[in-house]
Amino acid sequence: MLDQIALLAAVTVLGVLEQAYFALQVIYARRKYKVSPPDTAGPPEFERVFRAQANCSEYFPIFVSVLWVAGIFFQQGVAAVCGLLYLYARYQYFQGYTLSAHGRLGPMYFSAKVLWILIGLSMAGLLVHFLSLSSFVWRMEIPSKL
Amino acid sequence: MLDQIALLAAVTVLGVLEQAYFALQVIYARRKYKVSPPDTAGPPEFERVFRAQANCSEYFPIFVSVLWVAGIFFQQGVAAVCGLLYLYARYQYFQGYTLSAHGRLGPMYFSAKVLWILIGLSMAGLLVHFLSLSSFVWRMEIPSKL
Amino acid sequence: MLDQIALLAAVTVLGVLEQAYFALQVIYARRKYKVSPPDTAGPPEFERVFRAQANCSEYFPIFVSVLWVAGIFFQQGVAAVCGLLYLYARYQYFQGYTLSAHGRLGPMYFSAKVLWILIGLSMAGLLVHFLSLSSFVWRMEIPSKL
Ligand SMILES: N[C@@H](CCC(=O)N[C@@H](CS)C(=O)NCC(=O)O)C(=O)O
Ligand SMILES: N[C@@H](CCC(=O)N[C@@H](CS)C(=O)NCC(=O)O)C(=O)O
Ligand SMILES: N[C@@H](CCC(=O)N[C@@H](CS)C(=O)NCC(=O)O)C(=O)O
Repeated sequence: MLDQIALLAAVTVLGVLEQAYFALQVIYARRKYKVSPPDTAGPPEFERVFRAQANCSEYFPIFVSVLWVAGIFFQQGVAAVCGLLYLYARYQYFQGYTLSAHGRLGPMYFSAKVLWILIGLSMAGLLVHFLSLSSFVWRMEIPSKL
Repeated sequence: MLDQIALLAAVTVLGVLEQAYFALQVIYARRKYKVSPPDTAGPPEFERVFRAQANCSEYFPIFVSVLWVAGIFFQQGVAAVCGLLYLYARYQYFQGYTLSAHGRLGPMYFSAKVLWILIGLSMAGLLVHFLSLSSFVWRMEIPSKL
Repeated sequence: MLDQIALLAAVTVLGVLEQAYFALQVIYARRKYKVSPPDTAGPPEFERVFRAQANCSEYFPIFVSVLWVAGIFFQQGVAAVCGLLYLYARYQYFQGYTLSAHGRLGPMYFSAKVLWILIGLSMAGLLVHFLSLSSFVWRMEIPSKL
Protein backbone atom coordinates (compact mmCIF):
# COMPACT_ATOMS: atom_id res chain seq x y z
CA MET A 1 0.00 0.00 0.00
CA LEU A 2 2.58 2.59 1.14
CA ASP A 3 4.71 1.81 -1.93
CA GLN A 4 1.95 3.21 -4.10
CA ILE A 5 2.10 6.64 -2.45
CA ALA A 6 5.66 6.98 -1.12
CA LEU A 7 6.94 8.96 -4.11
CA LEU A 8 3.89 11.25 -3.99
CA ALA A 9 4.51 11.82 -0.28
CA ALA A 10 8.19 12.58 -0.94
CA VAL A 11 7.33 15.15 -3.64
CA THR A 12 4.73 16.68 -1.31
CA VAL A 13 7.30 17.11 1.47
CA LEU A 14 9.69 18.68 -1.05
CA GLY A 15 6.90 21.09 -1.97
CA VAL A 16 6.42 21.95 1.70
CA LEU A 17 10.15 22.66 2.04
CA GLU A 18 9.94 24.94 -1.00
CA GLN A 19 7.00 26.83 0.52
CA ALA A 20 8.96 27.19 3.78
CA TYR A 21 11.85 28.65 1.77
CA PHE A 22 9.52 31.14 0.04
CA ALA A 23 8.02 32.21 3.40
CA LEU A 24 11.51 32.80 4.82
CA GLN A 25 12.35 34.99 1.82
CA VAL A 26 9.28 37.14 2.59
CA ILE A 27 10.40 37.45 6.22
CA TYR A 28 13.90 38.56 5.08
CA ALA A 29 12.37 41.00 2.57
CA ARG A 30 10.14 42.43 5.33
CA ARG A 31 13.28 43.15 7.37
CA LYS A 32 15.32 44.47 4.44
CA TYR A 33 12.62 46.84 3.15
CA LYS A 34 11.19 47.62 6.59
CA VAL A 35 7.62 46.50 5.87
CA SER A 36 6.24 45.39 9.23
CA PRO A 37 3.09 43.28 9.49
CA PRO A 38 0.21 43.84 9.10
CA ASP A 39 1.42 46.02 6.18
CA THR A 40 1.76 44.37 2.79
CA ALA A 41 2.47 47.46 0.67
CA GLY A 42 6.02 48.70 0.19
CA PRO A 43 8.63 49.27 -2.50
CA PRO A 44 8.13 47.20 -5.69
CA GLU A 45 11.12 45.02 -4.74
CA PHE A 46 9.29 43.94 -1.59
CA GLU A 47 5.91 43.59 -3.26
CA ARG A 48 7.29 41.26 -5.89
CA VAL A 49 8.72 38.89 -3.26
CA PHE A 50 5.48 39.14 -1.28
CA ARG A 51 3.29 38.39 -4.31
CA ALA A 52 5.58 35.61 -5.55
CA GLN A 53 5.10 33.75 -2.27
CA ALA A 54 1.36 34.54 -2.18
CA ASN A 55 0.88 33.23 -5.71
CA CYS A 56 2.83 30.02 -5.01
CA SER A 57 0.83 29.48 -1.79
CA GLU A 58 -2.43 29.93 -3.66
CA TYR A 59 -1.49 27.19 -6.14
CA PHE A 60 0.03 24.79 -3.61
CA PRO A 61 -3.21 22.97 -2.59
CA ILE A 62 -4.26 22.76 -6.25
CA PHE A 63 -0.90 21.22 -7.11
CA VAL A 64 -0.97 18.71 -4.24
CA SER A 65 -4.54 17.67 -5.14
CA VAL A 66 -3.81 16.80 -8.77
CA LEU A 67 -0.41 15.31 -7.92
CA TRP A 68 -2.13 12.72 -5.72
CA VAL A 69 -5.10 12.02 -7.99
CA ALA A 70 -2.80 11.60 -11.00
CA GLY A 71 -0.39 9.45 -8.97
CA ILE A 72 -3.09 7.17 -7.59
CA PHE A 73 -5.36 6.84 -10.63
CA PHE A 74 -2.86 7.19 -13.48
CA GLN A 75 0.67 6.23 -12.45
CA GLN A 76 2.78 7.24 -9.48
CA GLY A 77 6.17 7.61 -11.20
CA VAL A 78 4.87 9.84 -14.01
CA ALA A 79 2.99 12.03 -11.53
CA ALA A 80 6.05 12.35 -9.29
CA VAL A 81 8.23 13.45 -12.23
CA CYS A 82 5.63 16.06 -13.22
CA GLY A 83 5.57 17.11 -9.56
CA LEU A 84 9.34 17.67 -9.56
CA LEU A 85 9.08 19.69 -12.78
CA TYR A 86 6.32 21.80 -11.23
CA LEU A 87 8.35 22.52 -8.09
CA TYR A 88 11.36 23.43 -10.24
CA ALA A 89 9.19 25.79 -12.34
CA ARG A 90 7.87 27.41 -9.16
CA TYR A 91 11.40 27.95 -7.90
CA GLN A 92 12.24 29.68 -11.20
CA TYR A 93 9.00 31.67 -10.93
CA PHE A 94 9.93 32.90 -7.48
CA GLN A 95 13.47 33.88 -8.50
CA GLY A 96 12.26 35.51 -11.72
CA TYR A 97 9.47 37.47 -10.02
CA THR A 98 11.94 38.66 -7.34
CA LEU A 99 14.08 40.26 -10.07
CA SER A 100 11.29 41.73 -12.20
CA ALA A 101 7.57 41.32 -12.84
CA HIS A 102 8.42 40.19 -16.37
CA GLY A 103 10.79 37.54 -15.06
CA ARG A 104 7.88 35.56 -13.64
CA LEU A 105 6.18 34.98 -17.01
CA GLY A 106 8.29 32.19 -18.57
CA PRO A 107 8.26 29.95 -15.48
CA MET A 108 4.55 30.80 -14.93
CA TYR A 109 3.62 29.44 -18.36
CA PHE A 110 5.79 26.36 -17.81
CA SER A 111 4.31 25.64 -14.38
CA ALA A 112 0.81 26.07 -15.81
CA LYS A 113 1.60 23.56 -18.57
CA VAL A 114 2.82 20.99 -16.04
CA LEU A 115 -0.33 21.57 -13.99
CA TRP A 116 -2.49 20.97 -17.07
CA ILE A 117 -0.59 17.74 -17.73
CA LEU A 118 -1.31 16.58 -14.15
CA ILE A 119 -4.97 17.52 -14.62
CA GLY A 120 -5.02 15.56 -17.91
CA LEU A 121 -3.42 12.50 -16.30
CA SER A 122 -5.91 12.68 -13.41
CA MET A 123 -8.85 12.81 -15.80
CA ALA A 124 -7.43 9.99 -17.95
CA GLY A 125 -6.84 7.80 -14.89
CA LEU A 126 -10.32 8.45 -13.51
CA LEU A 127 -11.92 7.83 -16.93
CA VAL A 128 -10.21 4.45 -17.28
CA HIS A 129 -11.24 3.61 -13.71
CA PHE A 130 -14.91 4.42 -14.29
CA LEU A 131 -14.98 2.74 -17.73
CA SER A 132 -13.38 -0.49 -16.51
CA LEU A 133 -15.79 -0.43 -13.59
CA SER A 134 -18.78 -0.17 -15.89
CA SER A 135 -17.42 -2.81 -18.28
CA PHE A 136 -16.98 -5.06 -15.24
CA VAL A 137 -20.62 -4.54 -14.27
CA TRP A 138 -21.49 -5.19 -17.92
CA ARG A 139 -19.60 -8.49 -18.02
CA MET A 140 -21.27 -9.55 -14.79
CA GLU A 141 -24.73 -8.68 -15.99
CA ILE A 142 -24.72 -10.33 -19.40
CA PRO A 143 -24.05 -13.89 -18.19
CA SER A 144 -26.54 -13.51 -15.38
CA LYS A 145 -29.22 -12.38 -17.85
CA LEU A 146 -28.63 -15.29 -20.17
CA MET B 1 -9.94 0.41 -2.53
CA LEU B 2 -9.92 2.90 -5.45
CA ASP B 3 -13.70 2.53 -5.75
CA GLN B 4 -14.06 4.08 -2.31
CA ILE B 5 -12.33 7.30 -3.35
CA ALA B 6 -12.92 7.61 -7.11
CA LEU B 7 -15.90 9.96 -6.78
CA LEU B 8 -14.03 12.11 -4.25
CA ALA B 9 -11.08 12.29 -6.65
CA ALA B 10 -13.39 13.25 -9.52
CA VAL B 11 -15.00 16.08 -7.51
CA THR B 12 -11.53 17.25 -6.44
CA VAL B 13 -10.36 17.46 -10.07
CA LEU B 14 -13.54 19.38 -10.93
CA GLY B 15 -12.68 21.78 -8.10
CA VAL B 16 -9.19 22.22 -9.53
CA LEU B 17 -10.68 23.02 -12.95
CA GLU B 18 -12.93 25.61 -11.31
CA GLN B 19 -9.94 27.21 -9.56
CA ALA B 20 -8.08 27.29 -12.88
CA TYR B 21 -11.08 29.06 -14.44
CA PHE B 22 -11.12 31.65 -11.61
CA ALA B 23 -7.37 32.27 -12.00
CA LEU B 24 -7.83 32.83 -15.75
CA GLN B 25 -10.58 35.37 -15.04
CA VAL B 26 -8.14 37.31 -12.81
CA ILE B 27 -5.54 37.26 -15.60
CA TYR B 28 -8.15 38.61 -18.09
CA ALA B 29 -9.25 41.26 -15.57
CA ARG B 30 -5.62 42.30 -15.06
CA ARG B 31 -5.35 42.91 -18.83
CA LYS B 32 -8.73 44.60 -19.16
CA TYR B 33 -8.24 47.02 -16.24
CA LYS B 34 -4.46 47.35 -16.74
CA VAL B 35 -3.45 46.20 -13.25
CA SER B 36 0.01 44.67 -13.69
CA PRO B 37 1.56 42.43 -11.03
CA PRO B 38 2.71 42.93 -8.35
CA ASP B 39 -0.15 45.47 -8.00
CA THR B 40 -3.43 44.21 -6.57
CA ALA B 41 -5.26 47.53 -6.21
CA GLY B 42 -7.30 48.93 -9.08
CA PRO B 43 -10.85 49.88 -10.02
CA PRO B 44 -13.57 48.17 -7.94
CA GLU B 45 -14.49 45.99 -10.97
CA PHE B 46 -10.99 44.53 -10.91
CA GLU B 47 -10.78 44.24 -7.14
CA ARG B 48 -14.00 42.25 -6.97
CA VAL B 49 -12.70 39.68 -9.46
CA PHE B 50 -9.35 39.59 -7.64
CA ARG B 51 -10.96 39.10 -4.22
CA ALA B 52 -13.48 36.55 -5.52
CA GLN B 53 -10.62 34.33 -6.68
CA ALA B 54 -8.60 34.97 -3.51
CA ASN B 55 -11.55 34.04 -1.30
CA CYS B 56 -12.28 30.84 -3.26
CA SER B 57 -8.57 29.89 -3.12
CA GLU B 58 -8.52 30.42 0.63
CA TYR B 59 -11.44 28.01 1.11
CA PHE B 60 -10.27 25.39 -1.41
CA PRO B 61 -8.00 23.37 0.94
CA ILE B 62 -10.64 23.51 3.68
CA PHE B 63 -13.23 22.20 1.22
CA VAL B 64 -10.99 19.38 -0.09
CA SER B 65 -10.12 18.33 3.48
CA VAL B 66 -13.70 17.88 4.67
CA LEU B 67 -14.82 16.43 1.33
CA TRP B 68 -12.36 13.56 1.80
CA VAL B 69 -12.91 13.01 5.52
CA ALA B 70 -16.70 12.99 5.03
CA GLY B 71 -16.39 10.73 1.98
CA ILE B 72 -14.12 8.21 3.69
CA PHE B 73 -15.65 8.14 7.18
CA PHE B 74 -19.30 8.89 6.42
CA GLN B 75 -20.27 7.94 2.88
CA GLN B 76 -18.65 8.68 -0.47
CA GLY B 77 -21.77 9.36 -2.56
CA VAL B 78 -23.29 11.83 -0.09
CA ALA B 79 -19.97 13.69 0.26
CA ALA B 80 -19.54 13.86 -3.52
CA VAL B 81 -23.03 15.34 -3.98
CA CYS B 82 -22.28 17.96 -1.29
CA GLY B 83 -19.00 18.61 -3.09
CA LEU B 84 -20.80 19.30 -6.36
CA LEU B 85 -23.21 21.65 -4.58
CA TYR B 86 -20.28 23.48 -3.01
CA LEU B 87 -18.51 23.92 -6.36
CA TYR B 88 -21.75 25.17 -7.92
CA ALA B 89 -22.21 27.66 -5.05
CA ARG B 90 -18.64 28.87 -5.51
CA TYR B 91 -19.25 29.41 -9.23
CA GLN B 92 -22.31 31.51 -8.35
CA TYR B 93 -20.26 33.35 -5.71
CA PHE B 94 -17.60 34.22 -8.27
CA GLN B 95 -20.13 35.43 -10.85
CA GLY B 96 -22.12 37.35 -8.24
CA TYR B 97 -19.04 39.04 -6.73
CA THR B 98 -17.84 39.99 -10.23
CA LEU B 99 -21.07 41.95 -10.76
CA SER B 100 -21.35 43.56 -7.32
CA ALA B 101 -20.11 43.07 -3.76
CA HIS B 102 -23.69 42.39 -2.72
CA GLY B 103 -24.04 39.67 -5.36
CA ARG B 104 -21.58 37.46 -3.48
CA LEU B 105 -23.72 37.20 -0.32
CA GLY B 106 -26.41 34.68 -1.31
CA PRO B 107 -23.99 32.10 -2.77
CA MET B 108 -21.57 32.74 0.15
CA TYR B 109 -24.22 31.74 2.69
CA PHE B 110 -25.17 28.71 0.60
CA SER B 111 -21.55 27.56 0.20
CA ALA B 112 -21.02 28.02 3.96
CA LYS B 113 -24.07 25.86 4.67
CA VAL B 114 -22.79 23.07 2.44
CA LEU B 115 -19.40 23.30 4.13
CA TRP B 116 -21.03 22.97 7.55
CA ILE B 117 -22.90 19.90 6.31
CA LEU B 118 -19.60 18.34 5.18
CA ILE B 119 -18.08 19.19 8.56
CA GLY B 120 -21.10 17.60 10.29
CA LEU B 121 -20.86 14.43 8.18
CA SER B 122 -17.12 14.22 8.90
CA MET B 123 -17.70 14.50 12.62
CA ALA B 124 -20.56 11.99 12.55
CA GLY B 125 -18.47 9.49 10.56
CA LEU B 126 -15.49 9.87 12.87
CA LEU B 127 -17.69 9.58 15.96
CA VAL B 128 -19.23 6.31 14.74
CA HIS B 129 -15.74 5.05 13.89
CA PHE B 130 -14.32 5.79 17.34
CA LEU B 131 -17.44 4.51 19.14
CA SER B 132 -17.54 1.22 17.24
CA LEU B 133 -13.82 0.88 17.89
CA SER B 134 -14.29 1.28 21.61
CA SER B 135 -17.30 -1.02 21.69
CA PHE B 136 -15.16 -3.57 19.83
CA VAL B 137 -12.44 -3.26 22.48
CA TRP B 138 -15.22 -3.53 25.07
CA ARG B 139 -16.58 -6.74 23.57
CA MET B 140 -13.06 -8.17 23.43
CA GLU B 141 -12.27 -7.28 27.00
CA ILE B 142 -15.37 -8.56 28.75
CA PRO B 143 -15.00 -12.20 27.68
CA SER B 144 -11.29 -12.14 28.43
CA LYS B 145 -11.97 -10.79 31.92
CA LEU B 146 -14.56 -13.44 32.69
CA MET C 1 -7.14 0.67 7.30
CA LEU C 2 -9.35 3.49 8.67
CA ASP C 3 -7.78 3.03 12.11
CA GLN C 4 -4.48 4.18 10.66
CA ILE C 5 -5.87 7.56 9.60
CA ALA C 6 -8.78 8.25 11.97
CA LEU C 7 -6.75 10.45 14.33
CA LEU C 8 -5.26 12.39 11.40
CA ALA C 9 -8.77 12.92 10.02
CA ALA C 10 -9.99 14.11 13.43
CA VAL C 11 -7.14 16.64 13.77
CA THR C 12 -7.82 17.81 10.19
CA VAL C 13 -11.49 18.46 10.98
CA LEU C 14 -10.45 20.34 14.12
CA GLY C 15 -8.17 22.46 11.92
CA VAL C 16 -11.09 23.16 9.58
CA LEU C 17 -13.20 24.28 12.56
CA GLU C 18 -10.38 26.60 13.62
CA GLN C 19 -10.17 28.09 10.12
CA ALA C 20 -13.95 28.60 10.16
CA TYR C 21 -13.61 30.42 13.50
CA PHE C 22 -10.87 32.68 12.07
CA ALA C 23 -13.00 33.48 8.99
CA LEU C 24 -15.93 34.43 11.24
CA GLN C 25 -13.67 36.77 13.20
CA VAL C 26 -12.74 38.55 9.94
CA ILE C 27 -16.44 38.90 9.08
CA TYR C 28 -17.15 40.42 12.53
CA ALA C 29 -14.12 42.73 12.18
CA ARG C 30 -15.37 43.84 8.75
CA ARG C 31 -18.68 44.85 10.37
CA LYS C 32 -17.10 46.46 13.42
CA TYR C 33 -14.57 48.54 11.49
CA LYS C 34 -16.82 49.08 8.46
CA VAL C 35 -14.46 47.58 5.87
CA SER C 36 -16.72 46.25 3.13
CA PRO C 37 -15.45 43.76 0.53
CA PRO C 38 -13.65 44.02 -1.83
CA ASP C 39 -11.66 46.41 0.45
CA THR C 40 -8.95 44.89 2.58
CA ALA C 41 -7.36 48.09 3.92
CA GLY C 42 -8.64 49.72 7.08
CA PRO C 43 -7.59 50.65 10.61
CA PRO C 44 -4.64 48.61 11.98
CA GLU C 45 -7.03 46.77 14.33
CA PHE C 46 -8.88 45.42 11.30
CA GLU C 47 -5.76 44.73 9.25
CA ARG C 48 -4.25 42.61 12.01
CA VAL C 49 -7.32 40.38 12.17
CA PHE C 50 -7.43 40.21 8.37
CA ARG C 51 -3.74 39.29 8.08
CA ALA C 52 -3.90 36.83 10.97
CA GLN C 53 -6.56 34.85 9.13
CA ALA C 54 -4.76 35.20 5.78
CA ASN C 55 -1.51 33.93 7.26
CA CYS C 56 -3.19 30.94 8.94
CA SER C 57 -5.01 30.11 5.68
CA GLU C 58 -1.74 30.22 3.75
CA TYR C 59 -0.16 27.67 6.09
CA PHE C 60 -3.21 25.40 6.41
CA PRO C 61 -2.53 23.21 3.31
CA ILE C 62 1.15 22.96 4.26
CA PHE C 63 0.18 21.83 7.74
CA VAL C 64 -2.37 19.27 6.52
CA SER C 65 0.14 17.85 4.02
CA VAL C 66 2.90 17.14 6.54
CA LEU C 67 0.42 16.03 9.21
CA TRP C 68 -0.72 13.23 6.91
CA VAL C 69 2.69 12.24 5.56
CA ALA C 70 4.16 12.16 9.08
CA GLY C 71 1.12 10.25 10.38
CA ILE C 72 1.18 7.63 7.63
CA PHE C 73 4.94 7.14 7.21
CA PHE C 74 6.18 7.84 10.75
CA GLN C 75 3.51 7.23 13.38
CA GLN C 76 -0.09 8.39 13.63
CA GLY C 77 -0.26 9.19 17.35
CA VAL C 78 2.89 11.34 17.37
CA ALA C 79 1.75 13.24 14.28
CA ALA C 80 -1.70 13.83 15.78
CA VAL C 81 -0.21 15.25 19.00
CA CYS C 82 2.03 17.58 16.95
CA GLY C 83 -1.08 18.53 14.97
CA LEU C 84 -2.92 19.51 18.16
CA LEU C 85 0.07 21.57 19.31
CA TYR C 86 0.18 23.32 15.94
CA LEU C 87 -3.53 24.17 16.05
CA TYR C 88 -3.13 25.47 19.61
CA ALA C 89 -0.15 27.63 18.52
CA ARG C 90 -2.19 29.00 15.63
CA TYR C 91 -5.02 29.92 17.99
CA GLN C 92 -2.51 31.81 20.17
CA TYR C 93 -1.05 33.41 17.03
CA PHE C 94 -4.47 34.66 15.97
CA GLN C 95 -5.32 36.06 19.41
CA GLY C 96 -1.87 37.62 19.80
CA TYR C 97 -1.90 39.21 16.33
CA THR C 98 -5.40 40.59 17.00
CA LEU C 99 -4.03 42.49 20.03
CA SER C 100 -0.74 43.71 18.53
CA ALA C 101 1.66 42.88 15.68
CA HIS C 102 4.24 41.95 18.30
CA GLY C 103 1.84 39.53 19.98
CA ARG C 104 1.98 37.23 16.97
CA LEU C 105 5.72 36.52 17.24
CA GLY C 106 5.95 34.03 20.13
CA PRO C 107 3.20 31.72 18.84
CA MET C 108 4.59 32.13 15.28
CA TYR C 109 7.98 30.76 16.33
CA PHE C 110 6.32 27.95 18.26
CA SER C 111 4.05 26.98 15.35
CA ALA C 112 7.05 27.05 13.01
CA LYS C 113 8.96 24.71 15.34
CA VAL C 114 6.07 22.23 15.40
CA LEU C 115 5.86 22.41 11.61
CA TRP C 116 9.58 21.64 11.33
CA ILE C 117 9.10 18.65 13.65
CA LEU C 118 6.32 17.36 11.40
CA ILE C 119 8.58 17.88 8.37
CA GLY C 120 11.38 16.01 10.16
CA LEU C 121 9.09 13.10 11.09
CA SER C 122 7.84 12.94 7.49
CA MET C 123 11.36 12.79 6.13
CA ALA C 124 12.44 10.21 8.73
CA GLY C 125 9.41 8.03 7.96
CA LEU C 126 9.96 8.25 4.21
CA LEU C 127 13.69 7.53 4.59
CA VAL C 128 13.03 4.38 6.60
CA HIS C 129 10.43 3.36 4.04
CA PHE C 130 12.78 3.75 1.07
CA LEU C 131 15.73 2.18 2.90
CA SER C 132 13.78 -0.88 4.04
CA LEU C 133 12.45 -1.17 0.52
CA SER C 134 15.93 -1.20 -0.95
CA SER C 135 17.24 -3.60 1.69
CA PHE C 136 14.30 -5.85 0.81
CA VAL C 137 15.28 -5.75 -2.88
CA TRP C 138 18.86 -6.40 -1.75
CA ARG C 139 17.87 -9.46 0.28
CA MET C 140 15.87 -10.78 -2.65
CA GLU C 141 18.66 -10.28 -5.13
CA ILE C 142 21.56 -11.82 -3.25
CA PRO C 143 20.04 -15.29 -2.86
CA SER C 144 18.87 -15.28 -6.46
CA LYS C 145 22.38 -14.39 -7.64
CA LEU C 146 24.00 -17.16 -5.63
N1 LIG D 1 2.71 35.94 4.03
C1 LIG D 1 3.65 36.00 5.13
C2 LIG D 1 4.84 35.07 4.83
C3 LIG D 1 5.91 34.97 5.88
C4 LIG D 1 5.37 34.76 7.30
O1 LIG D 1 4.73 33.73 7.59
N2 LIG D 1 5.63 35.77 8.18
C5 LIG D 1 5.26 35.72 9.57
C6 LIG D 1 6.43 36.28 10.40
S1 LIG D 1 6.88 37.95 9.86
C7 LIG D 1 4.02 36.53 9.87
O2 LIG D 1 3.53 36.45 10.99
N3 LIG D 1 3.52 37.35 8.93
C8 LIG D 1 2.44 38.24 9.18
C9 LIG D 1 1.45 38.31 8.06
O3 LIG D 1 1.45 37.42 7.17
O4 LIG D 1 0.63 39.24 8.08
C10 LIG D 1 4.04 37.45 5.33
O5 LIG D 1 3.58 38.29 4.54
O6 LIG D 1 4.73 37.78 6.31
N1 LIG E 1 -3.76 35.74 -7.82
C1 LIG E 1 -3.27 35.70 -9.17
C2 LIG E 1 -4.23 34.87 -10.03
C3 LIG E 1 -3.86 34.68 -11.48
C4 LIG E 1 -2.41 34.30 -11.72
O1 LIG E 1 -1.95 33.21 -11.28
N2 LIG E 1 -1.67 35.21 -12.39
C5 LIG E 1 -0.29 35.00 -12.77
C6 LIG E 1 -0.08 35.51 -14.20
S1 LIG E 1 -0.60 37.24 -14.37
C7 LIG E 1 0.69 35.72 -11.86
O2 LIG E 1 1.88 35.50 -11.98
N3 LIG E 1 0.20 36.63 -10.97
C8 LIG E 1 1.06 37.45 -10.18
C9 LIG E 1 0.59 37.60 -8.77
O3 LIG E 1 -0.26 36.82 -8.32
O4 LIG E 1 1.14 38.49 -8.09
C10 LIG E 1 -3.12 37.14 -9.64
O5 LIG E 1 -3.48 38.05 -8.89
O6 LIG E 1 -2.61 37.38 -10.73
N1 LIG F 1 -10.77 36.58 3.69
C1 LIG F 1 -12.20 36.71 3.96
C2 LIG F 1 -12.56 35.93 5.23
C3 LIG F 1 -14.00 35.93 5.64
C4 LIG F 1 -14.97 35.62 4.51
O1 LIG F 1 -14.95 34.53 3.91
N2 LIG F 1 -15.81 36.64 4.18
C5 LIG F 1 -16.85 36.52 3.18
C6 LIG F 1 -18.12 37.18 3.70
S1 LIG F 1 -17.83 38.91 4.17
C7 LIG F 1 -16.46 37.18 1.86
O2 LIG F 1 -17.18 37.02 0.89
N3 LIG F 1 -15.37 37.96 1.83
C8 LIG F 1 -15.02 38.71 0.66
C9 LIG F 1 -13.55 38.70 0.36
O3 LIG F 1 -12.82 37.84 0.89
O4 LIG F 1 -13.14 39.52 -0.48
C10 LIG F 1 -12.51 38.21 4.02
O5 LIG F 1 -11.57 39.01 3.93
O6 LIG F 1 -13.68 38.59 4.10
